[in-house]
Amino acid sequence: MTIRTIEVREKVMARNDELAMQVRSRLRDHGVTALNLVSSPGAGKTTLLERTLADLGDELRIAVVAGDVQTHNDASRLEALTDRLVQAVVTGGACHMDARQVSTALDAIDLERTDLVFIENVGNLVCPASWDLGEAEKIVLFSVPEGEDKPVKYPRMFREAGCAILNKTDLLPHVPFDLDRAIAYLREVNPDQHLILTSALTGDGLEVWYAYLRSKLGAAVAE
Amino acid sequence: MTIRTIEVREKVMARNDELAMQVRSRLRDHGVTALNLVSSPGAGKTTLLERTLADLGDELRIAVVAGDVQTHNDASRLEALTDRLVQAVVTGGACHMDARQVSTALDAIDLERTDLVFIENVGNLVCPASWDLGEAEKIVLFSVPEGEDKPVKYPRMFREAGCAILNKTDLLPHVPFDLDRAIAYLREVNPDQHLILTSALTGDGLEVWYAYLRSKLGAAVAE
Repeated sequence: MTIRTIEVREKVMARNDELAMQVRSRLRDHGVTALNLVSSPGAGKTTLLERTLADLGDELRIAVVAGDVQTHNDASRLEALTDRLVQAVVTGGACHMDARQVSTALDAIDLERTDLVFIENVGNLVCPASWDLGEAEKIVLFSVPEGEDKPVKYPRMFREAGCAILNKTDLLPHVPFDLDRAIAYLREVNPDQHLILTSALTGDGLEVWYAYLRSKLGAAVAE
Repeated sequence: MTIRTIEVREKVMARNDELAMQVRSRLRDHGVTALNLVSSPGAGKTTLLERTLADLGDELRIAVVAGDVQTHNDASRLEALTDRLVQAVVTGGACHMDARQVSTALDAIDLERTDLVFIENVGNLVCPASWDLGEAEKIVLFSVPEGEDKPVKYPRMFREAGCAILNKTDLLPHVPFDLDRAIAYLREVNPDQHLILTSALTGDGLEVWYAYLRSKLGAAVAE
């Protein structure tokens, strides 16, 4: 990249960070916890949210901002499961969501009547790591069939996320996957990260995930 | 994005396209076929290349340019299997490889003694779609556990690729995956794309993949 490219990029990032701080402060004022879900394509973000909405929909007031490159597929899947607002964001080819998109999506959500906002980011383990959306925390999903080495191959994302979910544990008997090695890789890049093992398909481990969510509610959110 | 951001981006892309044309012409001069492998993280690009090097290494002179965001993991896995040159490219955080990186990597490869160059791109279904690397063709892998909808969710990548490989077919009995629906999605975005079903783990379908590779050798390459 040329110096000029880098300069322009830095300005765009600085503007995003500023907007993200505004989003964060707005969420805090309403006591809303926002979690930014990031992963590879097909790691199971939407299925995890489907289960979460079905299981916690009566207990918590949950809204979703579902980002996608081109389609509304994820938003449509989730809308079927909740009377809470699901806001679809189409990035139009961009490899990540940005704080402006989240800010606009939040305009349509009654934050006074919301406990938790899930931001379902674009399926991508690289770009979303650099974009602050004003969330309380990034949650990174990776799934058993992707292999053990994702944390070391995409270290920035795994360092940025406060919590990692290893999903599709139901496939452990069917693929070569060394769980101890995966955990060692994870600890190598982020020793303090919360780790939760789930199968969003069978429901295994979801109670631990729900307990984690409850622990995050109304959190005074650090940057 | 502001107008200035778009202008700078267009200049960077134009410069890349120019370099890609130089790479393409250089490869053609030496009768080398280059294939650009793209996929989600963990779809099986490296495992497919491991098998391909092991099975075709005596028949074809294959070199690999393996790109990764931060590590040399993939290059190291492949180096163990071939005495052919494996060139590691680390993008240093970038979400895709570019033509300059490929051009530099090719400097170290004896193209006169090479039939086929695999470029293993960064695991990402968004960014690599926009970056021409001078390849003869993009090959997109997607894998059964990722779900059927990848083609419609990442349409640009599936439109850009001349061939799609649906990998990890060994997992079909263990996950909810509707093969007819996946093929219908694929046809929706790219009716003419070559489709190959493989399990790089068990070896199923690899003979079809190898026949496809043979059909591409020494191809006079269109843009």
